[in-house]
Amino acid sequence: MNPETSPETSPEQAAREEELVARVVASFDGCEDDRLRTLMQALTRHLHAFVREVRLTEDEWGAAIAFLTAAGHITDDKRQEFILLSDVLGASMQTIAINNEADGDATEATVWGPFFVEGSPEIELGGDMSFGAPGQPCWVEGTVTSTDGTPLAGALVEVWEADEDGFYDVQYSDGRTSARAHLHTDADGAFRFWGITPTPYPIPHDGPVGRLLAATGRSPMRASHLHFLVRAPEHRQLVTHIFVEGDELLESDSVFGVKDSLVKEFVEQPAGTPTPDGRAVEGTWARTRFDVVLAREPQTD
Amino acid sequence: MNPETSPETSPEQAAREEELVARVVASFDGCEDDRLRTLMQALTRHLHAFVREVRLTEDEWGAAIAFLTAAGHITDDKRQEFILLSDVLGASMQTIAINNEADGDATEATVWGPFFVEGSPEIELGGDMSFGAPGQPCWVEGTVTSTDGTPLAGALVEVWEADEDGFYDVQYSDGRTSARAHLHTDADGAFRFWGITPTPYPIPHDGPVGRLLAATGRSPMRASHLHFLVRAPEHRQLVTHIFVEGDELLESDSVFGVKDSLVKEFVEQPAGTPTPDGRAVEGTWARTRFDVVLAREPQTD
Repeated sequence: MNPETSPETSPEQAAREEELVARVVASFDGCEDDRLRTLMQALTRHLHAFVREVRLTEDEWGAAIAFLTAAGHITDDKRQEFILLSDVLGASMQTIAINNEADGDATEATVWGPFFVEGSPEIELGGDMSFGAPGQPCWVEGTVTSTDGTPLAGALVEVWEADEDGFYDVQYSDGRTSARAHLHTDADGAFRFWGITPTPYPIPHDGPVGRLLAATGRSPMRASHLHFLVRAPEHRQLVTHIFVEGDELLESDSVFGVKDSLVKEFVEQPAGTPTPDGRAVEGTWARTRFDVVLAREPQTD
Repeated sequence: MNPETSPETSPEQAAREEELVARVVASFDGCEDDRLRTLMQALTRHLHAFVREVRLTEDEWGAAIAFLTAAGHITDDKRQEFILLSDVLGASMQTIAINNEADGDATEATVWGPFFVEGSPEIELGGDMSFGAPGQPCWVEGTVTSTDGTPLAGALVEVWEADEDGFYDVQYSDGRTSARAHLHTDADGAFRFWGITPTPYPIPHDGPVGRLLAATGRSPMRASHLHFLVRAPEHRQLVTHIFVEGDELLESDSVFGVKDSLVKEFVEQPAGTPTPDGRAVEGTWARTRFDVVLAREPQTD
């Protein structure tokens, strides 16, 4: 039995539906761009397989059109509902997975998220990327190496995160730059900096995607995380996060960004514990370690 | 081999991708609306199958987001780019096919199109639905019967079409009502009216959907057609068109609305040929016949 038809579907009905799929696929035969033809023909096949499998009603089709229309209308320069939709359906994470294939012990990638900004401030090794963002101070250290173990000196490390109120600097209207910076590894491939301990926050959920999550009983919350972008010559650029061990949201991250290998211990230090660089900290602080392994690019120019 | 992975995909990579699909599907397990859960889980599976099969690149993902954004921004009360997108991918026609299953010799359905308007003027049998729309006069006659052959008296027949310039009345800004009307069948289930001979026209193609058609070498043209909506008690409502035999566009209708059973002979009559109802016509005219068969509703209240 064809899995795309129900037991009640007659052979004549199935033939009509299959003939239509074949006709739409064939309509792209004349496309001169091979890749575009492949994409559109595959999209057609999978879209029709969905519509046929669920026996989509005309009302449901209308609801889908209305959903896309609402998503289009809430989207502007600062709000991207279609990216949110891709995120909550796991399509963003799947695209990342496909384009960062498993390569030995190379660190796993995860979603970009919408809050990376080009041109972050540079800090020295051991510097503070929080720039006053509220949150518990957190010492982050690690190394960047190649998959063969070679330390990568001078590698670029970009880091960014939300503050303890759950907002990135760009979500404030005062033009601040905080909780984002870049630095470079030392001769041993090591890096270290002060940031803040990540805390959870929701994705924007006052639009159609938020309503979809509510209707399906899903949470808009993201697991607590700290973003990294790491780049070194002749290696594949890595965009990833680290997550906080013990976070209740690890199993229900709204955009499916969590990978077991990216969950790190953030060890809280009692008030008064001496800091690694002798900095005076009032109250508690935390420390964590993230050793990054970059895959080699298959070819370089 | 899993058809969704290329020969080069390692087992570890495939496992990562499959684990992600399973995680997204499971995220909808708590949805209390059974139908919505079914829809979202099926959508997730088919969407990921597409992304994995084509090995979607991050740039292609970005192009898809940009396409949807542009479609959302051109859509307003008068322009519906998402319906056009559904139409040119055949998804509208597939939804129609699924919801109008083959039933004996019941007349096949096709797409609604965006130009139906509630509250058309009523005409008598043999009346003129063109209301002055430019085009070659065309005599249309036929019957409405049930699948068992019973004539259906008093059935509602709604008809609407574009004028010979390719525009529906609602596409003009002067508020005109033309080339649309409704009438009722007589005691023998017969109907007859004057309209105009259908001519081809393009779907709106100055937006992202038009650019997609151009990039893939497809035409925005619709095959010439005349719309029908036919309704009778205890029968399934039929929304369909008839098409013009010999039209070059029958094989390339941009929304896949053509069914062989809906292609009719429009016989051109030389100038001076007496008309069926004695009406005086200057120049040539055409005539066609469309016998409609309605499926019975499986149950009625």
